[in-house]
Amino acid sequence: MITGKNFIGTVTSAGNNKTYSTFNPKLNKPTEWIFHEASQEEVNAAVEKAAIAFETYRNFPDRKKAEFLKAIASEIEALGNELIAVYVQESGLPEGRAIGERGRTMGQLRAFATLLEEGSWVEATLDTAKPDREPLPKVDIRKMLLPIGPIAVFGASNFPLAFSTAGGDTASALAAGCPVIVKSHPMHAGTGELVASAIALAAKKTGMPDGVFSNLNSSDSQVGQLLTMHPKVKGVGFTGSTKGGMALYQLAAERKEPIPVFAEMGSINPVVVLPSALEQKGSEWAAQYAGSIVLGAGQFCTNPGLIIGIKGEAMDGFITKLGKEIEKLEPSCMLHPNIYEGYEKGKKELSSQAKTMEVASFKGEVAPNFAGQKILTVAAKDFLDNPVLHKEVFGPFSIVVQCRDKGELLTVIQHLEGQLTGTILGTETEIKMSQDVINALVNRVGRIIFNGVPTGVEVCPSMMHGGPFPSTSDSRFTSVGTSAIRRWVRPVAFQNWPEELLPDALKTNNPLKIMRLVNGEHTKQSL
Amino acid sequence: MITGKNFIGTVTSAGNNKTYSTFNPKLNKPTEWIFHEASQEEVNAAVEKAAIAFETYRNFPDRKKAEFLKAIASEIEALGNELIAVYVQESGLPEGRAIGERGRTMGQLRAFATLLEEGSWVEATLDTAKPDREPLPKVDIRKMLLPIGPIAVFGASNFPLAFSTAGGDTASALAAGCPVIVKSHPMHAGTGELVASAIALAAKKTGMPDGVFSNLNSSDSQVGQLLTMHPKVKGVGFTGSTKGGMALYQLAAERKEPIPVFAEMGSINPVVVLPSALEQKGSEWAAQYAGSIVLGAGQFCTNPGLIIGIKGEAMDGFITKLGKEIEKLEPSCMLHPNIYEGYEKGKKELSSQAKTMEVASFKGEVAPNFAGQKILTVAAKDFLDNPVLHKEVFGPFSIVVQCRDKGELLTVIQHLEGQLTGTILGTETEIKMSQDVINALVNRVGRIIFNGVPTGVEVCPSMMHGGPFPSTSDSRFTSVGTSAIRRWVRPVAFQNWPEELLPDALKTNNPLKIMRLVNGEHTKQSL
Repeated sequence: MITGKNFIGTVTSAGNNKTYSTFNPKLNKPTEWIFHEASQEEVNAAVEKAAIAFETYRNFPDRKKAEFLKAIASEIEALGNELIAVYVQESGLPEGRAIGERGRTMGQLRAFATLLEEGSWVEATLDTAKPDREPLPKVDIRKMLLPIGPIAVFGASNFPLAFSTAGGDTASALAAGCPVIVKSHPMHAGTGELVASAIALAAKKTGMPDGVFSNLNSSDSQVGQLLTMHPKVKGVGFTGSTKGGMALYQLAAERKEPIPVFAEMGSINPVVVLPSALEQKGSEWAAQYAGSIVLGAGQFCTNPGLIIGIKGEAMDGFITKLGKEIEKLEPSCMLHPNIYEGYEKGKKELSSQAKTMEVASFKGEVAPNFAGQKILTVAAKDFLDNPVLHKEVFGPFSIVVQCRDKGELLTVIQHLEGQLTGTILGTETEIKMSQDVINALVNRVGRIIFNGVPTGVEVCPSMMHGGPFPSTSDSRFTSVGTSAIRRWVRPVAFQNWPEELLPDALKTNNPLKIMRLVNGEHTKQSL
Repeated sequence: MITGKNFIGTVTSAGNNKTYSTFNPKLNKPTEWIFHEASQEEVNAAVEKAAIAFETYRNFPDRKKAEFLKAIASEIEALGNELIAVYVQESGLPEGRAIGERGRTMGQLRAFATLLEEGSWVEATLDTAKPDREPLPKVDIRKMLLPIGPIAVFGASNFPLAFSTAGGDTASALAAGCPVIVKSHPMHAGTGELVASAIALAAKKTGMPDGVFSNLNSSDSQVGQLLTMHPKVKGVGFTGSTKGGMALYQLAAERKEPIPVFAEMGSINPVVVLPSALEQKGSEWAAQYAGSIVLGAGQFCTNPGLIIGIKGEAMDGFITKLGKEIEKLEPSCMLHPNIYEGYEKGKKELSSQAKTMEVASFKGEVAPNFAGQKILTVAAKDFLDNPVLHKEVFGPFSIVVQCRDKGELLTVIQHLEGQLTGTILGTETEIKMSQDVINALVNRVGRIIFNGVPTGVEVCPSMMHGGPFPSTSDSRFTSVGTSAIRRWVRPVAFQNWPEELLPDALKTNNPLKIMRLVNGEHTKQSL
């Protein structure tokens, strides 16, 4: 049952008279649920509880934190159909997507549990003493990763489960040993509350300190600002717009004690179509990309918003086919009228730029909040001259850039901003002859894909979901996959530390049997 | 021979009429050398060259970069006595220290070369395809660390070699595959020029692209600001004052494309003296700490500036002994009149605070720029009430804080800012009973030491030289030891990438024989 209350640790609270509702975009009307905006007192109470909880939680052994994560996954599952029904109402996304995303969310939590159970993630590094070393004896030093403190998590609009209340940011921070305070996304506050109730229950069942998790309702920017400025918050995870992410980044940088903000802010995900790709299977690629562009109403950070190829007959054929395929597809409902309006505005702005040409657009009637897809094309020269065309339009929209030759194609890539992904389509033979293009693209992206589509972000150790600015605020970290835990930890070295008091990960006999770097050698052996 | 010119890559240049000299603090007069401040054109030229060099350098195999680093070490050695003589004149430090620091500098370069030759540092992570997976096939993804781009390095005043032109920041960035532009420290511009000439020679001999390294003279803040704001600079390494570090940090955060600034800004390095330490060997600790406080005229970021103990007879005895020992030691020359003046000013400010008491100070005559050591003591309550007493005084100065009991000692620790190091002196038995004190201290420091002194920073994989703010701007990274390379890299994932085009570190048969994480398992095996 949705109460509309905040979770301050495991205690629900509604201290504020300011309320708001979520919205059902398919019905084009508000849902029945009323949420109490978190007050400043509630924000402070959540952070204070988190800071106290941190003193206990940070010392819990990994297996205990793993139990908590697994319990969260089970409690989310136990929410059953109510969660799916609320998700669907609040997002306009279909039930199959809701079920898939729930699976992904539970999978992420369990993947972090497995990481903790294995234990090597702490990067234990030991250098033992050499008392006889000349001119100075060497002391024993042992280093491992430890959590940084309470983390504020800002969920994404487009993944009400997997990038939200119990999403990758929350799962990775809790795995690291950091309490989490979620600023609930206002578009799916009901979904968020249900998930928060599952986390609170899991925390109780597995004996976690109260305050290890809180969920704060918020319909404007105040709660997020208070969280980011609170001296006891030590890091921020954010997925959303460039404007929102950069506002938090600046706020955090201006604190008396600056803190890291990991903002994933979107990307146009360039796709380079080499001539050989068109010769061999141009029309297959056209069909596949039409699907990728329209998937989930284009509401993915990895949506392919830019396709770059070389002018000519083959490219003409590809564009025609892409247009035909895209016109065939049925529009889907967007997450919220605000998202829909943003999409229509962006689409209009880019379409009205001089020297752009429409390739295709959905021509039929669309229901309210449903996104009619559109493809433009433009010559490379005009694309290079117009920064407006480099902007992300969040939705089923893409621009095809036509270059005179490979030199101009390289120039286009060299003028792109940082991106989450870059893709190259072609034969192996041709890609081998395109080392300059690959080099330029690798230098601008977090993930580079050969003969595929950028949508679909696997949750695994090798995933990199994060790229050079402005796609994210810190290209050195990923927000998807188990490496996401790195954002919430810092190394601490123990020098000449008594064996008995060392954390298990650093003990001489390696009781956790983890992989360690001992005197420069990787080993699972005891010393 | 010192020319006073800038190195724009391997080309020397003196385009600016603005000049300055270095200073011999022992003779208390300027040296004979005149340096040409880098002009804005020279700054831009160095960065442009670095950006072009990056396109080649970032693709060099690790063993080639290792040759470069080893060649730098050899060329520094080949500078012979001239380097030592210039170092001594420009720093006031003794010859033995110069020779020792040269050894440390060459050792660091060679340690990074070894890291590259071994190769596992790139954290190769492979997850292979599962085409049959349900409901969706899994694609092949392989991730490794790649360099971020040209780096600006700001050398430290207090280590003219090991934390300067070819110091840890430069060595780690070059090892990562990032070109380096050094803003030369004005106090040892001659030492810097000699080292720069060694690097330029090494770059030529090992076939590095011109621009992989530049050295810019600078006597005020303009060159540093230009470097930090240049769009083609992708990161900053800095060791120095809080004011300088934070100015760069803010500048970098306000750029159109924010970049990371790793600023190591100092620390008062608290030392907790448990009662058992005093009972067992109080007078030995007093003698050892007197030496650590005065070492190198106290000009170490890990200088113990704060000693915290519990009031009583044993503590009285320790303080008396510490005073006697400190008075016996001969003052040393500081690096520069500015440093000396800063020291005297800080010493005076803290000594004049109400309720502080002098324990001891050097009473004899001191030569110009020689630092007379001083120890104060203060009750914990008064220390807690007065933020001025928490400030770092860069030099041979320390405050002994006397607490009523262990509870108050814990309170003092809980009110400390972030620190590079924290130390606990005591018996193992007593430290075991002080888990709250350890917890509080670990949460505030990058390195925690048992029964030792914080001065002396070992260069090894397990070293952590970096701590919570304000000791550094980013507690997640170290500036000493081989892990310092992590600051200059970001992960890039290759999805479905053709085998032949994969970087060697990610190839199926593991030609580099490095440790990799393959489908969740650490292994050196080929797939």
